[in-house]
Amino acid sequence: MTASRLPFEIIRDPAAMRAKVEDLRRDGRTLAVVPTMGYLHEGHLSLLRAARARADVVILTIFVNPTQFGPTEDLARYPRDEDGDLAKARSCGVDLAFCPDVAAMYGPGAQTFVTVRELEQPMCGERRPGHFAGVATIVTKLFNLTRPHLAFFGEKDFQQLAIIRRLVRDLDFGIEVVGLPIVREPDGLAMSSRNVYLAPDHRRQALALSRGLAAAAAAVAAGERDAAALLAAARAPFAEAPDARLDYLELRGADDLAPLTRLDRRAVMAVAAFVGTTRLIDNRVLQP
Amino acid sequence: MTASRLPFEIIRDPAAMRAKVEDLRRDGRTLAVVPTMGYLHEGHLSLLRAARARADVVILTIFVNPTQFGPTEDLARYPRDEDGDLAKARSCGVDLAFCPDVAAMYGPGAQTFVTVRELEQPMCGERRPGHFAGVATIVTKLFNLTRPHLAFFGEKDFQQLAIIRRLVRDLDFGIEVVGLPIVREPDGLAMSSRNVYLAPDHRRQALALSRGLAAAAAAVAAGERDAAALLAAARAPFAEAPDARLDYLELRGADDLAPLTRLDRRAVMAVAAFVGTTRLIDNRVLQP
Repeated sequence: MTASRLPFEIIRDPAAMRAKVEDLRRDGRTLAVVPTMGYLHEGHLSLLRAARARADVVILTIFVNPTQFGPTEDLARYPRDEDGDLAKARSCGVDLAFCPDVAAMYGPGAQTFVTVRELEQPMCGERRPGHFAGVATIVTKLFNLTRPHLAFFGEKDFQQLAIIRRLVRDLDFGIEVVGLPIVREPDGLAMSSRNVYLAPDHRRQALALSRGLAAAAAAVAAGERDAAALLAAARAPFAEAPDARLDYLELRGADDLAPLTRLDRRAVMAVAAFVGTTRLIDNRVLQP
Repeated sequence: MTASRLPFEIIRDPAAMRAKVEDLRRDGRTLAVVPTMGYLHEGHLSLLRAARARADVVILTIFVNPTQFGPTEDLARYPRDEDGDLAKARSCGVDLAFCPDVAAMYGPGAQTFVTVRELEQPMCGERRPGHFAGVATIVTKLFNLTRPHLAFFGEKDFQQLAIIRRLVRDLDFGIEVVGLPIVREPDGLAMSSRNVYLAPDHRRQALALSRGLAAAAAAVAAGERDAAALLAAARAPFAEAPDARLDYLELRGADDLAPLTRLDRRAVMAVAAFVGTTRLIDNRVLQP
């Protein structure tokens, strides 16, 4: 790390963003990017603080990316609070906030997509067709516009993180991808911008996800290795959450996301569930 | 442009290539890349000379990319002459030759592909499934490894050039793509590394492609605008080429590759034909 801090700046124009980082790289600065869809919570802030500790220049991107939402999903009502986000960003030491609008990012005739063919198939990929192509494409674009040395993502979107690690390697981006642990509310609920959708009773029922994962981890600690038994342990709390409906609950290899029948290597137990109409995800890495 | 010329260097390791261009960009040099599959002919050399005239550093890449060949195509016998290519490269003022092997470019588990959804559908895309995803993917990788300001491609691969222009825009590469005219043999045959496959009699019959396009251009000059009439003019020389078989012959918009029934805007007439077992392509831009 070198040189003094930059004045905080909000950039909306992709060409201006590109020119800015070109200058910064030429000055020899180390750049970190934290791509987000905004409505920042403590999970995002943990990424920003970690980026601050590693890089000369911390770039926060805020962009609710339409290509990763399905036609029946919550794009239109996705929560937004740019002023609040920018205040939080400054308090975490962000230097540059890149906040483009949709027209600036997807011009007329845009048709190029990045796909990570195998990793995008299961889990959320199966339930949200096109979602990960949208994610991989916007991340590629943001990497090209911000040219970071480091990129920070949360492990809450575990499959997304696996996909991004793979695409960085496969497309030779030369970026160090840093994944950071899920940040949870005191009662265990994984932080998510979508938690704001939950009515109080659903907020309580949403604990089925994290409690189920904790039960699976406890079963592993007690010696259980059979995937079916571990999944049954994780499913149990849903019996007491009448408005929660499992979308999927799976045990897969942590790197290749291959399905496992036994916990015989580093794995992830991943869950998605609708609580009322709100779709939540959570996961926990399990070691044999 | 700034600074003195570099000593000529051959680089085989992707990480070394990336480190090299990182240093060069930090020094403020302008970089141009000319991606090729080697077996260089005058068409390639015209790209290298144009790059030399525009950039401080000219990077030639030589890589016979397996992901753009179909299972029944000529990957195994594709002509190669690295020593000859490097001698030609030096004579054109190339600074860096990037010549990675396949294992260095596609590691275990590689599965990320770039697709340009509409432009890759017709013409060669229809006849060579997966070809343009292979092209778009390797070009993305080579762009990330060489980080050029300028990239040079021949118009002979007209659809490829349209796809690359689109992907550079859509993925925010910030690279100026320069397309250069087809270089032809004295008798009109478009230069191609695959011309070496042609036996003498087939070499003569291969002129059906360029003669057909010339006939169409002559018809345009004489006032013809009807696509069917122009295509008939271009097809005529094939009657005298018994071993030549048209794969496609089409008139399309020059930018969007939309099919045209009349020459009412800038267009490309594109042809692909097998001469014996050798597949050749050619094209000609037509203006109304």
